[in-house]
Amino acid sequence: MSATHRRILLVSRPRGAASLDNFRLEEVPVPVVGPGQLLVRHHWLSLDPYMRGRMNDAKSYAPPQPLGEVMIGGTAGEVVVSRHPGFVAGDRVVGMGGWQEYALVDEAGAALLRRVDTSIVPLAAYLGPVGMPGVTAWYGLSMICAPKPGETVVVSAAAGAVGSIVGQLARARGCRAVGIAGGRAKCDYVQGELGFDACIDYKAAPDAAALDAALAAAAPAGIDACFENVGGRCLDAVIGRMNAFGRIALCGLIAGYDGTPVPITNPGPILRARLKVQGFIIFEHQDIWPWAASELAAGVASGRLRYRETVAEGLESAPAAFLGLLRGDNLGKQLVRLA
Amino acid sequence: MSATHRRILLVSRPRGAASLDNFRLEEVPVPVVGPGQLLVRHHWLSLDPYMRGRMNDAKSYAPPQPLGEVMIGGTAGEVVVSRHPGFVAGDRVVGMGGWQEYALVDEAGAALLRRVDTSIVPLAAYLGPVGMPGVTAWYGLSMICAPKPGETVVVSAAAGAVGSIVGQLARARGCRAVGIAGGRAKCDYVQGELGFDACIDYKAAPDAAALDAALAAAAPAGIDACFENVGGRCLDAVIGRMNAFGRIALCGLIAGYDGTPVPITNPGPILRARLKVQGFIIFEHQDIWPWAASELAAGVASGRLRYRETVAEGLESAPAAFLGLLRGDNLGKQLVRLA
Repeated sequence: MSATHRRILLVSRPRGAASLDNFRLEEVPVPVVGPGQLLVRHHWLSLDPYMRGRMNDAKSYAPPQPLGEVMIGGTAGEVVVSRHPGFVAGDRVVGMGGWQEYALVDEAGAALLRRVDTSIVPLAAYLGPVGMPGVTAWYGLSMICAPKPGETVVVSAAAGAVGSIVGQLARARGCRAVGIAGGRAKCDYVQGELGFDACIDYKAAPDAAALDAALAAAAPAGIDACFENVGGRCLDAVIGRMNAFGRIALCGLIAGYDGTPVPITNPGPILRARLKVQGFIIFEHQDIWPWAASELAAGVASGRLRYRETVAEGLESAPAAFLGLLRGDNLGKQLVRLA
Repeated sequence: MSATHRRILLVSRPRGAASLDNFRLEEVPVPVVGPGQLLVRHHWLSLDPYMRGRMNDAKSYAPPQPLGEVMIGGTAGEVVVSRHPGFVAGDRVVGMGGWQEYALVDEAGAALLRRVDTSIVPLAAYLGPVGMPGVTAWYGLSMICAPKPGETVVVSAAAGAVGSIVGQLARARGCRAVGIAGGRAKCDYVQGELGFDACIDYKAAPDAAALDAALAAAAPAGIDACFENVGGRCLDAVIGRMNAFGRIALCGLIAGYDGTPVPITNPGPILRARLKVQGFIIFEHQDIWPWAASELAAGVASGRLRYRETVAEGLESAPAAFLGLLRGDNLGKQLVRLA
């Protein structure tokens, strides 16, 4: 074990787009493990769009990320020292260890640390299809979209960690799965490798009419449910093609994360088509976690549920990789390899 | 009985705002009653915002009002001739007789005609607090807003036929009722006569900041549920002050009925506050009608549930009264007296 380790703090809040200078990398001593504590060496850091929201000093479902502290983040790693009765060195664990190479976990933190079985599912998958993104997909699809076999489900950011699972689960439930993604390569992946019935490249649809025509072709029977990660003009187009009593699970609005809110241009169909639009935050639904995770783990273990990872190497690459995630540079789950 | 009667047809579709020349008054013979049919003399015609939507040739929950035919509309009147076994002359009935002085009702139509008891509730009330507007209020409040005692409920168009009932039902359920209405007179009525806890005059709040400040003062604990009839900047302001897990029943979007859709400027809180926004159309919820109507009738009969009517005299006044309704000229239920 090295005597020092590295961590990344949030040091300023973005005005508009987030930038590299909002973060600072520093090297500090590896913490000493006291009674009841344990030390985790992080192998993987998860980068996720919700982090952008925490960078703002705004009212939200969670308090803002404090300035001068280690950035919040999901991590997967290995217990290297334990003075806690519930863990031993060598345990593989997943938690919210933050943007750093090691994390000291106390009694309270240990209650939130989850020991995972890496014999059937690789450790990193617990940050992706079997972790928060997968459970998010499972919850929004199952509990809000609640599609019946034969219905059409649209998901935006379809090549991302969440969207890629939404469409595959929708297919497994007998639905027509239509993705929306940015660029030909992502759409080829979504349709060719993940098996969606169709995928729309919104970058190839320059205006509302082109996007509407693409949706009409991809969803000829209209749209019964939408799992929304993006907002903006893609959501506008979807709302215009929703069938009566359609459901929209609002999971993310990444189009508006950089400052200026992105409107819903025409809410009329929410009324006329009697839609339900519902926001959710997966951290509030711990009750369904084991249930969802076991279905997801079985899918990953059997190979039925496919996923990809975009891996940045080393903690120092995290800020740039995070900005890339917000721009949509990644395919599948964006990870940072720390060990 | 006069040998002729008058009726109003839709003869053109609005471009932008509806106008008087979209309608044409004509005089035609009173229909002859055939076997199995009955003739109703209309005493009251109901004018309602949904009619504006039917004037457009747009996809909606119902087909557009055909050109050259009698405008759709709820009516209350008296059976004057019956050759139908289920009705006798003198029966007071409520139905969808349209903008005309008499309506010939055939076998199929008779199944949709409702005989009403005018001994405890006046006939016109079956078009207002005990009819479609009242049941609309009851459904959206009870089934979508579903407020718990102590919660704060906001309703727009609070002096209107629907809004006025929403707030009173919310008060009866132990909630804080906050209205939004246009003009001091309406707000005085809503607060002073209907007993809402507060009412905001949006015309006195020229911009978003002023509207937000007024809402903050009227709903100091935030907003748990909203019954929305209007859309636009009032809805924007409400969304910004919704508490976690708030519910928005989308009943109308009158701000956008004249053409240009009115956006939801900042949908971010729908996600961050995990809101549910749900549109509904009361005609699809016949199952709750008797249940709701009996609570409403008891409220009206006892005087606990207050309401007002704005009455236009004579069928010829219907088009102008309807345009006035869309502008918000009315207080309470807009009716046309036909007999």
